[in-house]
Amino acid sequence: MKTKKLEDIHGLTPHNWEEIKNLGYEMVDDMVSYLQNIQEQPSWKEIPQNVKLHFEEDIPQNPQNPKSVYQEFKEFILPFPKGNIHPRFWAWVQGTGTITAAFSEMLATTMNPNVTIGEHAAMYVDKQVVKWCKQMLNYPETASGILLSGGSMANITGLTVARNFHNPSVRAYGIQHHKKQMVLYCSEETHSCITKAAEIIGLGNKSVRKIITNEHFQMDINELKKQIALDLQAGFQPFCIVATTGTVNTGAIDPLKEIYELCKTFNLWFHIDGAYGALAKLDPKFTEQLAYIEKADSVAFDLHKWLHIPYELGCLLVKNAEAHRASFAITPNYLLQTKRGLAGGLDSINNYGFELSRGFKALKVWMNLKEYGIHKYAALIAKNNEQAQYLGKLVSGSKQLKLLTPVTMSIVCFQFIHKQANIQTINKLNEEIIIRLQEQGIASPSSTILKGNYCIRVCIVNHKTKKNDLDELFLWVIKIGNQIVKEIGL
Amino acid sequence: MKTKKLEDIHGLTPHNWEEIKNLGYEMVDDMVSYLQNIQEQPSWKEIPQNVKLHFEEDIPQNPQNPKSVYQEFKEFILPFPKGNIHPRFWAWVQGTGTITAAFSEMLATTMNPNVTIGEHAAMYVDKQVVKWCKQMLNYPETASGILLSGGSMANITGLTVARNFHNPSVRAYGIQHHKKQMVLYCSEETHSCITKAAEIIGLGNKSVRKIITNEHFQMDINELKKQIALDLQAGFQPFCIVATTGTVNTGAIDPLKEIYELCKTFNLWFHIDGAYGALAKLDPKFTEQLAYIEKADSVAFDLHKWLHIPYELGCLLVKNAEAHRASFAITPNYLLQTKRGLAGGLDSINNYGFELSRGFKALKVWMNLKEYGIHKYAALIAKNNEQAQYLGKLVSGSKQLKLLTPVTMSIVCFQFIHKQANIQTINKLNEEIIIRLQEQGIASPSSTILKGNYCIRVCIVNHKTKKNDLDELFLWVIKIGNQIVKEIGL
Ligand SMILES: Cc1ncc(COP(=O)(O)O)c(C=O)c1O
Ligand SMILES: Cc1ncc(COP(=O)(O)O)c(C=O)c1O
Repeated sequence: MKTKKLEDIHGLTPHNWEEIKNLGYEMVDDMVSYLQNIQEQPSWKEIPQNVKLHFEEDIPQNPQNPKSVYQEFKEFILPFPKGNIHPRFWAWVQGTGTITAAFSEMLATTMNPNVTIGEHAAMYVDKQVVKWCKQMLNYPETASGILLSGGSMANITGLTVARNFHNPSVRAYGIQHHKKQMVLYCSEETHSCITKAAEIIGLGNKSVRKIITNEHFQMDINELKKQIALDLQAGFQPFCIVATTGTVNTGAIDPLKEIYELCKTFNLWFHIDGAYGALAKLDPKFTEQLAYIEKADSVAFDLHKWLHIPYELGCLLVKNAEAHRASFAITPNYLLQTKRGLAGGLDSINNYGFELSRGFKALKVWMNLKEYGIHKYAALIAKNNEQAQYLGKLVSGSKQLKLLTPVTMSIVCFQFIHKQANIQTINKLNEEIIIRLQEQGIASPSSTILKGNYCIRVCIVNHKTKKNDLDELFLWVIKIGNQIVKEIGL
Repeated sequence: MKTKKLEDIHGLTPHNWEEIKNLGYEMVDDMVSYLQNIQEQPSWKEIPQNVKLHFEEDIPQNPQNPKSVYQEFKEFILPFPKGNIHPRFWAWVQGTGTITAAFSEMLATTMNPNVTIGEHAAMYVDKQVVKWCKQMLNYPETASGILLSGGSMANITGLTVARNFHNPSVRAYGIQHHKKQMVLYCSEETHSCITKAAEIIGLGNKSVRKIITNEHFQMDINELKKQIALDLQAGFQPFCIVATTGTVNTGAIDPLKEIYELCKTFNLWFHIDGAYGALAKLDPKFTEQLAYIEKADSVAFDLHKWLHIPYELGCLLVKNAEAHRASFAITPNYLLQTKRGLAGGLDSINNYGFELSRGFKALKVWMNLKEYGIHKYAALIAKNNEQAQYLGKLVSGSKQLKLLTPVTMSIVCFQFIHKQANIQTINKLNEEIIIRLQEQGIASPSSTILKGNYCIRVCIVNHKTKKNDLDELFLWVIKIGNQIVKEIGL
């Protein structure tokens, strides 16, 4: 490559802007009708082998017309979504998204700011959205906060602050230097990201005391007290209790008041994993039970779940803003801030987390919250909770189905049962029911195992679901269940 | 709220799809002309006070028409970008983005999959993009990899694997259990995210041995050897060397071959921070010097820098795929995979990193790589490197400017100098030059400090920059410098 030739190479800006604009229109058209008609699509679809083969190709060497790239997208990708944009998707805990947030993402990506440092509008939008996150939960306005990719990152970031707060020498000297083994408490129903966090930040999973739960899958406070006493006696350093508000399995809420009081008594960090359920605080039914979220030292929760902001959007709030900053702030020479100019402005966001470069994820929150207002979200959360109660009643009313635990929030765990079948058969039967529901495109619940029972887990975090979708599910589970019973000749 | 009322509440789907479609067209129009004409805008603009005040509002309670939300975006946000979409933005290390990637993000967000588990097209796209990342660097195809938010996450994830590989008991027992203090090596020019990673994963920043650099800011191998010997003698456990290919300050490349050999000799993990410069391997000028990237145990690099994929897009590759998986795999009951149905398909991606929920970040890479082909990116990287050489020559040829280190990749660090000024004055003068360049909207370099010298740092990771942009910069630095000299009466 010669000097002159290199300089003459055109960048990545379109040669023909009109063509690109038309492609944009076409995409808008397609995306709008895709979402407009999604309920007529199956809830899930198998991917044919030839489609999978398409993704085996090597890295493209030479250019291809963007219009034809888009055709490939329409042929090979768009027809095979995960399905959480469908009214009958109730697997794991996944939000539904909105078309206007998809548009917002186009705007954010056009501007393409690195939202960590500097004086530009995106920094203020990010800051405002963090403030709104506090307001959603009625959390103190003096708290600090950061938008992250999700609940996992919010929890690990929060636990890092907790660790450093209770062991300030760890930033410099590491954990090895510390005499006592730090331990933290959570229930056995706690999400695996807490264990993963403990592993990553160097505490190890043995430092996570998984307290057994009562019959409602809530942390057993007496067992918690016993374990703390044992650990103190044995010379460990208890430093944190993680309470879950809405467990991933069943939506259980740990006893927050009791946990808060134990934290006070033993000087422990009170962390809340509210990835799924912190926002249930907006539903009047839960406002009181979740009031102690306001007392937590840190709260992790997701906006890509019940607020339906598209991925990725989690948030961590920390009551002690200085402790938060003291865990992460580093200012090397190349990131010095100035009083004026581009490098001026707000405190750099990398002082509050693991990441340096960050995208403009705040914009879609900012635009959707303005479009809908928080009351609307509150009502939709209440609606989902009520729909779960409704499904729970349908299940309880059927002799062929068994509710495995009372419904708390918007998760319903149940089984198809049969007198002649032992537990192994029942488990296999229910696994097969779930798969057939999916394969036939009827609905997408997911599964879990509760005390050895494989169950159909319906988690309604979906602004499109209607009651008749749940009626359909109920009928189909029984129908498919009976079919399988016949096939295996019970 | 009554039962009936809740069920009747409309979700977040538009009441009027035509209106939303028209809003989408309008946005496409605006975004296209925004980028089409960006070079006529100032490179940076101050944010007026009234605009800042707008971001002080509390959380919206009630709905607002999406069209009017968009008007707010156009009035308060769009006019105040960070500027890395502008041809004369050369601050920090920030990619430029493309309009088609912005469109791709709209497509990805419409589908809104959670790309961590399950059988759906996005999982295959993600996998293919990871494969392409290996192919870009000619890294072994048996390696594992994961797309992450950026270089910081890629480095910390890589170092976690290195830590766990050299101390397999740490997942269960934590670092405290381990007798020897683990230490890692990098140069004093290494990015702060390495220190931050060591702090987060429980090693502490004292465990990071910052080896001094030679006059070209490369790690001094003799000093490195001495330090390893000292540490072994003192009973520490050396476990990893981090080599940087393209330091953030000056673009220096550590001596990879020598580091690789030391890693072999002492059984150390060979990690590369190539966040900025690993992709320079695509420039024939660097292919040989960067060949040892292929030998590294892990490589962290960014696609949101020199590949101009919009934020956030980093990648970690790990040669030993089992070691990678062994660091992170957890399968709780609610994430069990099945042989068929929605929960089938590829290995869950959360087995390879910190995050559970992940967005469809792969799509914009997939679409842009198809649109442009990797040869195009290679040429643009070579072009930026050559432009930096060009600017370096302009600087060297001027008596009023001083090049602070020879240009390696695409970073040029220089100062405006003056015989009558001491170092403090020179430093202040250069800070003021940078700020005025920004305030006057001429260009956006950033700053750093090299051996006590505050300098103008021009990092050309920009597919829009032309040589005459650099000519302009050169003239304006001298002009503004002389102005300030006059003002302060030197
Ligand atoms: C209770 C709970 N905690 C944490 C997480 C992890 O959140 P994310 O998937 O956003 O990382 C989840 C995800 O479902 C969850 O339900
Ligand atoms: C050499 C180097 N390493 C790491 C990073 C951090 O990468 P990111 O900002 O994507 O987290 C940077 C960012 O500029 C860098 O230049």
